[in-house]
Amino acid sequence: MSINNIVIIGSGNLGWNLTIALFKAGFNILQIIDKNIQSANKLASQVNSDYTDNIKNINRNADLYIISVFDAVIENVVNSIKWNNKLVVHTSGSTNISIFKKNTDNYGVIYPLQTFTKFKQINFSNIPVFIEANNKENENQLLKFISKISNIVRLASSQKRFIIHLSAIVANNFTNYLYTLTDELLKKQGISFNILEPLFKETLNKAIEIGPSKSQTGPAIRNDINIIEKHLDFLKDKQEFYNIYTLISENIINRYNSV
Amino acid sequence: MSINNIVIIGSGNLGWNLTIALFKAGFNILQIIDKNIQSANKLASQVNSDYTDNIKNINRNADLYIISVFDAVIENVVNSIKWNNKLVVHTSGSTNISIFKKNTDNYGVIYPLQTFTKFKQINFSNIPVFIEANNKENENQLLKFISKISNIVRLASSQKRFIIHLSAIVANNFTNYLYTLTDELLKKQGISFNILEPLFKETLNKAIEIGPSKSQTGPAIRNDINIIEKHLDFLKDKQEFYNIYTLISENIINRYNSV
Repeated sequence: MSINNIVIIGSGNLGWNLTIALFKAGFNILQIIDKNIQSANKLASQVNSDYTDNIKNINRNADLYIISVFDAVIENVVNSIKWNNKLVVHTSGSTNISIFKKNTDNYGVIYPLQTFTKFKQINFSNIPVFIEANNKENENQLLKFISKISNIVRLASSQKRFIIHLSAIVANNFTNYLYTLTDELLKKQGISFNILEPLFKETLNKAIEIGPSKSQTGPAIRNDINIIEKHLDFLKDKQEFYNIYTLISENIINRYNSV
Repeated sequence: MSINNIVIIGSGNLGWNLTIALFKAGFNILQIIDKNIQSANKLASQVNSDYTDNIKNINRNADLYIISVFDAVIENVVNSIKWNNKLVVHTSGSTNISIFKKNTDNYGVIYPLQTFTKFKQINFSNIPVFIEANNKENENQLLKFISKISNIVRLASSQKRFIIHLSAIVANNFTNYLYTLTDELLKKQGISFNILEPLFKETLNKAIEIGPSKSQTGPAIRNDINIIEKHLDFLKDKQEFYNIYTLISENIINRYNSV
């Protein structure tokens, strides 16, 4: 049996983008389920599907159920349905596959490694997607299924996926936070954040090309205390920026200058 | 008088790339000066110039002297030469233009906002370059001069340049350090760092498009303590990673979840 009819539970950033990608790839979206009925309705109208805000009304005829809700809520959703051994997956980086164990015999995980925003559709084909399943048969089904929307499909255990998710938080959330601090600093001088774009791009290119450890430059790796102190003096009234500057600089100094 | 003959003092990462770009743009590189004679020789051979490791042998016939050495050494270089009112600049982000004041009447700063590696030539035309000079005439000379190698030339006072440099350290050095931590984490799982490239790129695209503050996603902005604790538990033996994860997560939580 191959997967064609799909029920989506959760129409947040990831659920939204995944649903649109599946619809465009020709899959039949049977139903969108979300407690936020406006969101369910809006997404459903884009993919010609049914929708509901009550999980008890779940459509029983799907080949695959995709749970894309906050981690803390996954278990509630899993426990609230009799799955009758239908194939069900979640999309979380840091939730173990074992969460399904007590409730069904056919389950797995589909974890797309990307940051999603509703209403900003991303081309899924270049997004790495990590698959896990409770047996070979389901694994093969999910691999085949996801290959229809992504060119980069890999298997990953729950432990491996956990570490990939942790890396993604650093890669995305933390760097974005550093962007935010920088943006605020520059704005006060009337300078556009976009002036840094070539620098950000080259930083990434270099890290990919020769590895980030060899790419490190700047006052901390030179242990240039004079410049670091000038910067800290300037940041002394910006507590959070000051603390981050201090901690990361100390770490770079220790890593590269210890004998 | 327009600038044609140039002496370069310092053949480090920035000096190296700037010299090659100037040579390619048709300027005449008279001389490379560096205490590291091998480095001076190597660069000189690429741009058909003289070279020396002794600053006392400086060629007196240049139209422009570019000092591209570590910040801590700039003052020594400035003080060790009688400039005879020749135009001289440094290339530092965080060193005030006033460093030249006592020694010459014609001076300025050329600050290219990019990360440089020797032997990895970057196309200079897309690099933003910030100019400062001690008077209008020198300012115009430097603007005209740098426009030959970059399409993004801006004026910036020492104070503005200082803040741009500080931003560049966050944008480049700190994000690169986060890349390094991630790279190490993934390597232990046999996963290539390059799997994160689409995520890094989208993070940057989104930040440029809608601004980083609105782009923030992840467990911290959702105040998802459950996931954060799982991650910290995993990182408990990796002290530096643990500290950075804690500090940045706390900052994101405080920024987005305070009433």
